[in-house]
Amino acid sequence: MVKYLTQSDAINIDNELFEKYKFSIVQLMELAGQSCAIAIKKCYPLVANNKNNILVCCGPGNNGGDGLVCARHLKLFEYSPVLYYPKITNNAIHKNLLHQCIQNEIPILESVTQIKNVNEYKLIVDALFGFSFKPPVKAEFVPIIDILKKSSIPICSIDIPSGWDVENGALEEGGIKPEMLISLTAPKLCAYKFKGIHHYLGGRFVPKKLELSYELKLPKYPGTELVIKL
Amino acid sequence: MVKYLTQSDAINIDNELFEKYKFSIVQLMELAGQSCAIAIKKCYPLVANNKNNILVCCGPGNNGGDGLVCARHLKLFEYSPVLYYPKITNNAIHKNLLHQCIQNEIPILESVTQIKNVNEYKLIVDALFGFSFKPPVKAEFVPIIDILKKSSIPICSIDIPSGWDVENGALEEGGIKPEMLISLTAPKLCAYKFKGIHHYLGGRFVPKKLELSYELKLPKYPGTELVIKL
Repeated sequence: MVKYLTQSDAINIDNELFEKYKFSIVQLMELAGQSCAIAIKKCYPLVANNKNNILVCCGPGNNGGDGLVCARHLKLFEYSPVLYYPKITNNAIHKNLLHQCIQNEIPILESVTQIKNVNEYKLIVDALFGFSFKPPVKAEFVPIIDILKKSSIPICSIDIPSGWDVENGALEEGGIKPEMLISLTAPKLCAYKFKGIHHYLGGRFVPKKLELSYELKLPKYPGTELVIKL
Repeated sequence: MVKYLTQSDAINIDNELFEKYKFSIVQLMELAGQSCAIAIKKCYPLVANNKNNILVCCGPGNNGGDGLVCARHLKLFEYSPVLYYPKITNNAIHKNLLHQCIQNEIPILESVTQIKNVNEYKLIVDALFGFSFKPPVKAEFVPIIDILKKSSIPICSIDIPSGWDVENGALEEGGIKPEMLISLTAPKLCAYKFKGIHHYLGGRFVPKKLELSYELKLPKYPGTELVIKL
């Protein structure tokens, strides 16, 4: 059985990938975001009636970066993603990823008031906070988390359902309830509390040596698949 | 019908991807190399008898970088790649990609004499020179090109069969004869002269706007496929 990670293990593995294995952030973000788009297409396929619009909510950190990449690949897969990206991160990686979205003609919303009717979307992708999140949710993100909590549209969370404690899950009854969770690299402990329908693992880039040293016991991805259902 | 590119169009498109669309080299190299590994797995599947070793020959430029990424993904797909990388490129991107191969326990050969018996491989991946190649082949690469020319092992060329003129194909009767060609972004004119069995297109990252401005008429990748047979 695949190991579910503590927050500190998740942080250590991430650091090792960059420091010891010399991956670049943009390289792993590309693979992570791409795997999310692939998993989403498996669970929420394109439909003929044009309701293929997906709201991708991106936070300021690396989870948001995964979301920016995911949105671009969703566009390549012929969905109509719309980004909600309220706090544009001031570094070259995020600015370039945003630019790539704009050049791929993905609309960008910077304020919750621009979201208008959330029910018009087929799916909401939650890429607000990742495995380094510590509660509480900062004031500026409370409105979008409230929208996600109240929405009846299915939510797909990338790595961590936003606002959840990385190890203990939803902190209060009213936490968001994603229908889909895509764990990256390996699931985090909060994934035991996930009660949705679709749990996928993405990020087929973990070196065997790293897998063994953390006893991750990753499932065997079949063939050239880049995601696997858990 | 997909457009076959001149050398200058290929160079201009590459420049636009970096300058106008703000992709980073490492980001597109990751997608390109990954797509090559996926296409190879489709054409040369794993076999039970352990003959899954692939010699991946990498040159000093970006084509070689694609090869380094391809080798790592082949390893993740459970092949046994061996790198032939005679001229280690002295920049952070290539050094990191090489380091990732080493950490993934891929053996590295730096001299042709270390190749010994080329017939022990199932496949040779040719990632020596790409679309910016101008003949003649530099002296230090003549021995490996000679090995590729004489080998009876199938060769898979990434983007351009090495030593071929990018527009006119093999310059002399004795040019290498790949069995597989994986064109990246769009085929180059020399691909008209390809007489092998498998011609694939990889690199599903081209923004629609770029595709339209160069009238690339790319084929429609089905579903979440990252490669397509031409």
